[in-house]
Amino acid sequence: MQVNGKHYRTIWRSAEDPTRISIIDQRNLPHQFVIETIDSVEEMARAISEMHIRGAVAIGVAAAFGMELAAREAAASSDFATSFADSATRLKNTRPTAVNLQWAVDRQLDHVLARTSADEGIEAAMTLADKIASEELDRCRQMGQHGLPLLQSLADRKGRPVNILTHCNAGWLACVDYGTATAPIYAAQEAGIALHVWVDETRPRNQGARLTAWELGQQGVPHTVVCDNTGGHLMQQGMVDIVLVGSDRTSYCGDVANKIGTYLKALAAYDNEIPFYAVLPSSTIDWDHPDGIKDFPIEQRDQGEVRYARGAVDGELREVLLCPADSGAANYAFDVTPARLLSGLISERGICSATEEGIRSLYPEGRHAGS
Amino acid sequence: MQVNGKHYRTIWRSAEDPTRISIIDQRNLPHQFVIETIDSVEEMARAISEMHIRGAVAIGVAAAFGMELAAREAAASSDFATSFADSATRLKNTRPTAVNLQWAVDRQLDHVLARTSADEGIEAAMTLADKIASEELDRCRQMGQHGLPLLQSLADRKGRPVNILTHCNAGWLACVDYGTATAPIYAAQEAGIALHVWVDETRPRNQGARLTAWELGQQGVPHTVVCDNTGGHLMQQGMVDIVLVGSDRTSYCGDVANKIGTYLKALAAYDNEIPFYAVLPSSTIDWDHPDGIKDFPIEQRDQGEVRYARGAVDGELREVLLCPADSGAANYAFDVTPARLLSGLISERGICSATEEGIRSLYPEGRHAGS
Repeated sequence: MQVNGKHYRTIWRSAEDPTRISIIDQRNLPHQFVIETIDSVEEMARAISEMHIRGAVAIGVAAAFGMELAAREAAASSDFATSFADSATRLKNTRPTAVNLQWAVDRQLDHVLARTSADEGIEAAMTLADKIASEELDRCRQMGQHGLPLLQSLADRKGRPVNILTHCNAGWLACVDYGTATAPIYAAQEAGIALHVWVDETRPRNQGARLTAWELGQQGVPHTVVCDNTGGHLMQQGMVDIVLVGSDRTSYCGDVANKIGTYLKALAAYDNEIPFYAVLPSSTIDWDHPDGIKDFPIEQRDQGEVRYARGAVDGELREVLLCPADSGAANYAFDVTPARLLSGLISERGICSATEEGIRSLYPEGRHAGS
Repeated sequence: MQVNGKHYRTIWRSAEDPTRISIIDQRNLPHQFVIETIDSVEEMARAISEMHIRGAVAIGVAAAFGMELAAREAAASSDFATSFADSATRLKNTRPTAVNLQWAVDRQLDHVLARTSADEGIEAAMTLADKIASEELDRCRQMGQHGLPLLQSLADRKGRPVNILTHCNAGWLACVDYGTATAPIYAAQEAGIALHVWVDETRPRNQGARLTAWELGQQGVPHTVVCDNTGGHLMQQGMVDIVLVGSDRTSYCGDVANKIGTYLKALAAYDNEIPFYAVLPSSTIDWDHPDGIKDFPIEQRDQGEVRYARGAVDGELREVLLCPADSGAANYAFDVTPARLLSGLISERGICSATEEGIRSLYPEGRHAGS
């Protein structure tokens, strides 16, 4: 998508030197736009673990490119296979619970170790990294196309700009391009549909206020930042036509684990009969677990993220303490929205109900890990 | 309640000089505890309008004391009645929508202007200011006593500390002492019931993280600050036994206007069958309006409160920008929780259902302004 009028992805092969990988360093957005060039597995591992790049899809692709760098480093070492496998372990350990990342690394391992020379290995890793990036990009584009008719029909029905509410950043910054929850928004904008997006700030890390608002602004999509408390009132007063969110993990019965606070918005949408969709690549579907509320472990993060807020003072990034110095805080990163509250799921193969039948109708090949 | 081990109210007659009024300046809490002494109507008007003191009950009492200062100033002027009435107007204009404040000023006006000398007027204003403060304090204490059995029965049933969730600050800082939503908590603590309070930070002004957490900490009540997004997950996972919130305005059919985000917590409590009570003095009951969602105007505040967060850096108060410099924000201050989501109302006369019948059973004298 656009940044200062120029097209970017979150990660790309450097134009000057195709053996180097460029990423947008997202840590200081929206206050500072920084491009980082990555030359080694260690640099990529740090970029992932320290969240220069974040979002399930984006870090999977980053790991795939990391494995290309690993192949180059392995070729320069005395033992290609050992060096390459060590790098795989290093990359997998950056975000141990990220399913896409594990999968991208394993795919590179299988693909590259099947080659007979180091040069062939490098070539194979390069091709596969590009392929994974391009597959993810296509999936996001498809989700956008499948979601587009929902927004088109709301626009036709309302005869005014469609008001969308979104939570957290399920935008292009979390993917390679287009995003998941934002893909239908960008597709609708391209189709000339008038839109306005309510952006939940998404405490504690403010991915909405920082990243989604920045993305939308750069793309020229009208938007308004609101506190996470606000969505219920907006829905009650008819100011929201549809809610679009992402999913970090989807049970095969349609429960959606997403950024903390998503469940509260789903309750409000249900109470006010407003359509609520999760937009997700099928890679988030967990074929082993039917019940997200019982089965999905919820990551707890550092309480400092709650006790402090981070933002800019005269362009400099600073943290301010929000609560008494001796008050503790809890920081649950995700919650689970039960399938019954969802109007449906939008995935790369189309829209389905948030039910086992619905999901299997699009993904009949899905099966338990053990089966 | 306690501050650094010493008992305080939010507002009191100065011990050294009973013609001066002391207040806790709440603006810089919890980072700085400042006591301000107020000598004139103008100083009191500024303390109210600039929110040194805030909360419906507290500003009503502040206005009552302001009218005592007004009587002293009027006595020193050439025309007691005109000066006193001008001060009344000045105080009423500080927070035009605050019902308690208007009522306290009018009560002083009627009471003082019925006296035949300036000295008698001063005496009358002094007596009435003390009486209003003491009535408000008694009401809060009564709400605490009426709410106590709810917490006692949860403690008996659970056999472990009772987990309470609260939103915003409906604490003693918003009243004279005890608070509204916090009154049952302090009563339960005094009764030896083990408690733990989840404190919603309450963006954008963070009255939960700043004020409620500070109050509870000073009183030794175990508590944990959470982002406003978190309550749904906590309720889903059985970590909340009861929700207690305040009310800024209550329709006579039981709808509750309270700090933005209250409605979302009420939805989650309802979805998880967790008791949800609003604790409110009967002065918040609006006898003219049955339907809070349709009838109550919702104040919009400065968008800067959303775009920035305020907190301490090395003890200094600073504001940090959270979103892109060119993204706009909306700031709705309240939302309305429909009566159907409430387990009941706790007021100074007892607990009732959030229905017209329930409210009239406790307040049979309540009637429309026009009737």
